[in-house]
Amino acid sequence: MKKHNFYAGPSILSQYTIKNTADAVLNFADMGLSILEISHRSKQFQAVIDEATALVKELLEVPAGYSVLWLGGGASMQFCMIPYNFLRTKASFIDTGTWAHNAIKEAKLFGEVDVVASSEAEHYTFIPKGFAEKVTADNDYFYYTSNNTIYGTEIRKDPDVPCRLISDMSSDIFSRPVDVAKYDAIFAGAQKNLAPAGVTIVIVRDDALGHVDRPIPTMLDYRTHVKKGSMFNTPPVLPIYSALQTLKYYKELGGIKELERRDLEKAALLYDAIDSSRMFVGTVTDPAGRSIMNVCFVMKPEYKELEPAFIEFATERGMVGIKGHRSVGGFRASLYNALPIESVRALVDCMNEFQKLH
Amino acid sequence: MKKHNFYAGPSILSQYTIKNTADAVLNFADMGLSILEISHRSKQFQAVIDEATALVKELLEVPAGYSVLWLGGGASMQFCMIPYNFLRTKASFIDTGTWAHNAIKEAKLFGEVDVVASSEAEHYTFIPKGFAEKVTADNDYFYYTSNNTIYGTEIRKDPDVPCRLISDMSSDIFSRPVDVAKYDAIFAGAQKNLAPAGVTIVIVRDDALGHVDRPIPTMLDYRTHVKKGSMFNTPPVLPIYSALQTLKYYKELGGIKELERRDLEKAALLYDAIDSSRMFVGTVTDPAGRSIMNVCFVMKPEYKELEPAFIEFATERGMVGIKGHRSVGGFRASLYNALPIESVRALVDCMNEFQKLH
Repeated sequence: MKKHNFYAGPSILSQYTIKNTADAVLNFADMGLSILEISHRSKQFQAVIDEATALVKELLEVPAGYSVLWLGGGASMQFCMIPYNFLRTKASFIDTGTWAHNAIKEAKLFGEVDVVASSEAEHYTFIPKGFAEKVTADNDYFYYTSNNTIYGTEIRKDPDVPCRLISDMSSDIFSRPVDVAKYDAIFAGAQKNLAPAGVTIVIVRDDALGHVDRPIPTMLDYRTHVKKGSMFNTPPVLPIYSALQTLKYYKELGGIKELERRDLEKAALLYDAIDSSRMFVGTVTDPAGRSIMNVCFVMKPEYKELEPAFIEFATERGMVGIKGHRSVGGFRASLYNALPIESVRALVDCMNEFQKLH
Repeated sequence: MKKHNFYAGPSILSQYTIKNTADAVLNFADMGLSILEISHRSKQFQAVIDEATALVKELLEVPAGYSVLWLGGGASMQFCMIPYNFLRTKASFIDTGTWAHNAIKEAKLFGEVDVVASSEAEHYTFIPKGFAEKVTADNDYFYYTSNNTIYGTEIRKDPDVPCRLISDMSSDIFSRPVDVAKYDAIFAGAQKNLAPAGVTIVIVRDDALGHVDRPIPTMLDYRTHVKKGSMFNTPPVLPIYSALQTLKYYKELGGIKELERRDLEKAALLYDAIDSSRMFVGTVTDPAGRSIMNVCFVMKPEYKELEPAFIEFATERGMVGIKGHRSVGGFRASLYNALPIESVRALVDCMNEFQKLH
């Protein structure tokens, strides 16, 4: 049976990425060797990382003066690397969920932290309005999580604040144009819209580095990786190769604008089905803050007891990974770039069929 | 043409590991999905990491009270994580090459560092004798790099010192029995004897954690990963799957003792060929400190100019990755566990043929 992959991450990758990666595991670049066992110093792999870097710059229109890094360790490692490298005295944050919360916790080890707005008390069911106006000019940076995988909320516009921006775009990078010039750093764990787990992209403004007084351990200092083109130590070779495949596929499709068009179309299809349903209801209270990547919904109180039955019903029809995160419950359908609209239609069909039966 | 993979790392993996990984990239655990796109929270992946952890414990006879962790970020990240977590006042080191040197540099950010012996002035061409006697009991730990990939030296016996041990075993783990009970931590980047680049194994003694006063960023605190079974954040899924394949293969072969027997046999074959040659000479001056993983050799002065010709000659015959590291020059043949003895024979044949011609 055809599977529809709605996992929140690691999550669906394009068939182009999967097929080319499988081929490279058997024979990479006609070397007669597997991508799993080749030196990162080989000219063949250097070509991979160079092309992947160039494509990130092209697709996101990264201005001159920025470096694109490919780091191991996961996006969570960035929660401490960001303040280690950028926090001199004070930074502001918006607390929109677990990942923002974790980033705030780490930043407090390094300097003053101002949380300008939070929806924690309301279980992160919305993006607080007017947060940008509360950010003051005396901040080293304003930090936000652009998409909240767990709660299904998203900030899809570069905030207009009187200081530099830093953002964790792990779960919605490559789904909208970004004005990179407003940022000192953008990072994204690859395992949503790019590659298998194991690599994190970091885009840093070179001139923003080197302004803190504290000593920084070598591996946590972005300058180390800028200077060595992400080759100070052995980078995660296979995830970078897979990322290149995805980036080539994105370019071929038409780039960010076409990806955004598709993502908006998919999200509209599912949100419309939820909003017009007698049985299901979205968990995000303000439609303006709804994520187009992770759609969170539950059964209305009068149908609540049917939730396990719907999971089973949908699973039998090939839906994978639609169980909601334990902190929200219900259902979560992640509609990352690689998910075809046919999978969204299949899920909507499931919902309609199930409603007819109950 | 059959390729003989002598890369220093990332490096040769068993055909069993490569084939099973390629299969899982197309269809993992009969899920109808790729290992690249499945949730690390799926029960199928939980089974992978559990089995891999159990096999590390079984193969290395890890005693009770230790945790096995699977971390992203590369072994170089451990150079700061080790002192962050273990260095209270003072640690001792032996400086045997680049990796030891880098670890010493990071430790100095956290406490007093005593380098009991170094062969740096002699270009790390030997392991300093009697180093263990210079280690005093007032150390939090004695740190050593068990194998020096770049210089081809190795410490193949757990040092007998009056304090706890910590070791970077990145390039010779699973090539000898280790008395884990003497260690507070052992770590190893996977990309030599285990898996593709992107995961680092750390074996830590649970009771040795939590004794430093400094605040530790969450991701750099081993307790975070112990508590969450390496699932605090998304672990590098594919490299862990490949590691499991290698570990199963090791167990099937007969475990560490059989691996060591094979490794010693391969190394003896190549060192004998070098030592009995009129043209080649090993770079490590004391045979007792020679690595059985990385064999470094050069042409004798009277043949020195033939080095590029030999690289070309060997490359034409399928040898890959035998160019020496730029800090040593000449040649380096890495004989990791997955390298069959036939490849060593092929290299020795090459050397003999070349000598006949010149």
